[in-house]
Amino acid sequence: MLNHSGSLDSVFQALSDPSRRVIVERLSRGPASVSELAQPLAMSLPAVIQHLQVLEASGLVCSEKIGRVRTCRVESAALRSAERWIATRRAIWERRLDRLGAYLAEDEQPNARRK
Amino acid sequence: MLNHSGSLDSVFQALSDPSRRVIVERLSRGPASVSELAQPLAMSLPAVIQHLQVLEASGLVCSEKIGRVRTCRVESAALRSAERWIATRRAIWERRLDRLGAYLAEDEQPNARRK
Repeated sequence: MLNHSGSLDSVFQALSDPSRRVIVERLSRGPASVSELAQPLAMSLPAVIQHLQVLEASGLVCSEKIGRVRTCRVESAALRSAERWIATRRAIWERRLDRLGAYLAEDEQPNARRK
Repeated sequence: MLNHSGSLDSVFQALSDPSRRVIVERLSRGPASVSELAQPLAMSLPAVIQHLQVLEASGLVCSEKIGRVRTCRVESAALRSAERWIATRRAIWERRLDRLGAYLAEDEQPNARRK
């Protein structure tokens, strides 16, 4: 499901906001309550909750309410699927550059000998 | 510059659209002209150009016009900065889970011995 195009749309969309990245950054260091997440952000609690809803909808974050406290944590599967998409494209491109470099180096050798 | 928050905003924003990911995917296999990029996409050339403008503004793609042909190529630095951001957060979180797992395993051992 996480490889599905729609999921990547919402994961990258969720990560495109700096406040949401601050939340993911905080949660990567461990689960946190909504009010703990709100502390470093200069915004209202409803605004933080809206950002959390975007993060939950994307699959990057999940939360659980125990008593009156909602605790959030990061979901590494969603992070991994986005990371893998980027890493695959970068690797294909860099391999291509390496092959091109090797080809040009080989091509230079006979010319050097001819001199 | 690529580690700057604004750049990550626009890189993740650019990657959140499936047509733009198709373009990046195609360009990871080698440079291409605008009309080559438009071929697999069911959209008008102006729409493709708009997507390319978003990709260029984010730093994911650069282009060069030689004669009448504009050739585009992917910029691995922008891909790498987005990949690194995600990979760092995922690694921090997974290390935390590993430590927790190790802690719980240690904690279980004395109980097992006590039985």
